[in-house]
Amino acid sequence: MPRPVDVPDLAERARRGEQLAVARLLSLVEDGAEAALREVAGALVTHTGRAHVVGVTGAPGVGKSTTTSAVVGALRAQGRRVGVLAVDPSSPFSGGALLGDRVRMGEHATDDGVFIRSMATRGHLGGLARATPQALRVLAAAGCDVVLVETVGVGQSEIEVVGLADTTVVLVAPGMGDGVQAAKAGILEIADVFVVNKADRDGARQTARDLRNMLSLAEPSAGDAWKPEVVRTVAARGEGVDDVVSALDAHREWLDRSGERRRRSRVRAEAEIRAIALDAVRSRMEDLRGAAGLPQLAERVLDGELDPYGAADELTGRLGGPGR
Amino acid sequence: MPRPVDVPDLAERARRGEQLAVARLLSLVEDGAEAALREVAGALVTHTGRAHVVGVTGAPGVGKSTTTSAVVGALRAQGRRVGVLAVDPSSPFSGGALLGDRVRMGEHATDDGVFIRSMATRGHLGGLARATPQALRVLAAAGCDVVLVETVGVGQSEIEVVGLADTTVVLVAPGMGDGVQAAKAGILEIADVFVVNKADRDGARQTARDLRNMLSLAEPSAGDAWKPEVVRTVAARGEGVDDVVSALDAHREWLDRSGERRRRSRVRAEAEIRAIALDAVRSRMEDLRGAAGLPQLAERVLDGELDPYGAADELTGRLGGPGR
Repeated sequence: MPRPVDVPDLAERARRGEQLAVARLLSLVEDGAEAALREVAGALVTHTGRAHVVGVTGAPGVGKSTTTSAVVGALRAQGRRVGVLAVDPSSPFSGGALLGDRVRMGEHATDDGVFIRSMATRGHLGGLARATPQALRVLAAAGCDVVLVETVGVGQSEIEVVGLADTTVVLVAPGMGDGVQAAKAGILEIADVFVVNKADRDGARQTARDLRNMLSLAEPSAGDAWKPEVVRTVAARGEGVDDVVSALDAHREWLDRSGERRRRSRVRAEAEIRAIALDAVRSRMEDLRGAAGLPQLAERVLDGELDPYGAADELTGRLGGPGR
Repeated sequence: MPRPVDVPDLAERARRGEQLAVARLLSLVEDGAEAALREVAGALVTHTGRAHVVGVTGAPGVGKSTTTSAVVGALRAQGRRVGVLAVDPSSPFSGGALLGDRVRMGEHATDDGVFIRSMATRGHLGGLARATPQALRVLAAAGCDVVLVETVGVGQSEIEVVGLADTTVVLVAPGMGDGVQAAKAGILEIADVFVVNKADRDGARQTARDLRNMLSLAEPSAGDAWKPEVVRTVAARGEGVDDVVSALDAHREWLDRSGERRRRSRVRAEAEIRAIALDAVRSRMEDLRGAAGLPQLAERVLDGELDPYGAADELTGRLGGPGR
């Protein structure tokens, strides 16, 4: 039978840094078919890479795309290979929403050392949660030193970033009580590096000061704990961008020195394995629901012969599952 | 060992319609401890009741609480026993958010034939999804003829209501292109009855006409299919409320006549059983993750000895699970 896609060949070419092969693997991963996800994971297993995964998040309008693009430029100037994943888990209409980002990233589009991808969720957050770790593996295997994961919006997406990233950058813009907003949104806890972008605007110094004050109040007492850095930028003019890169590097050094990087990686891998295992159980339940008599169990619940917990026990028992 | 709560005794008293017993069972269910949920389900298994579950949803400000309260009054005037569940799955800050509803429902607070409960999610949508079917069982066992499930907000919560209700009522207010908004939000598909509330305002007739037009375009060709009704109300003055009750009764008659009610009940019961079974598998995975060597599997993934899918297969295999 002819194989439509030769995954091991793609993986080999992706490892040599071929843009097209990387793009094809990312498409396979984004499509989310389990067989493809398995095959890509298998082909990349011995090529874990050492990419530093940096999450970039913040409210709409703070300049995430501009800042990401500027950071890419600074990293490229140092000869580092860079991946960019733009992720929008919040909108079911995100298919074309990231076109603007692609355009903004246009200056890097012809650079062989930059791999850019917009990931859409197609309305399924779980799908994104499954695809993104694999996409990071593809980019790491392609030799990226740093992968920037940019999320659009706030809330749920920030939580996702924290789950994925070694280092989380939170962007804020001056004014409008950002400090209070930040505290409310819980971003003080998730940020390893704060970037006050649009620092040429009124109130930028005050915003940075507010953040530092709040951080000093929240500061833990442990000896080698990371103290989040606060950097001011005007990303559109490239100002402060090298400071952002320095802060990212400092955090990575701390992660390595403290053992925290390995610990975070392991927690992520555990969560990923569990999620895959649960998916497998769920899809097996879907497959077998007829055979396992789910409709009949439901009828017995409706007729008052069985409560739903008893029915669930019977179901997992019939599936040979661990649920009882 | 003394038992803090005698669930079978509570269930017996709830079946006699004792307000306090119903309230205690609902609290047990809302707290969401699995053992309590199991015990309540078991105590109620032979008392499935025949409550007509009516979901009431719509955007903020359309008058959901006022309408719900008015419908309760109309049902009570006919001597029917009524339950009200006010549910807010969208806000993690909803603990006290429904106080206003309770106050508005105040006229029914001393009526022994009305059971009112505000359910908070405590930030966990899944918890609400688990607790609400049990809460409906409690109210059905207490002899409620109709249970109104009022959700605050739009989006996710509407989907939940459709999953729970026999009949879904969507409230809209006049003007502001509601028709188009309705189509966008997908509420045309979910509504069995439309209520154009605040019908004394400009544009109410137009809104009702727009809805009817859109419904006629969307109308299916099947012979005995339900054609959603559009009712105009001024709930604050009680106008049109009897028409709402008539529409609800007509839909229930159609549900019974067509066999759709039993079908919807079975689909709901299947979904509930599957969700409980998956929860059980998930919690067993949590319990056994150390024993099943999840940290070691994660280390092997990090070291490139195993891909996460292979690790998931090993995990489910060790748990004796159905995932492989």
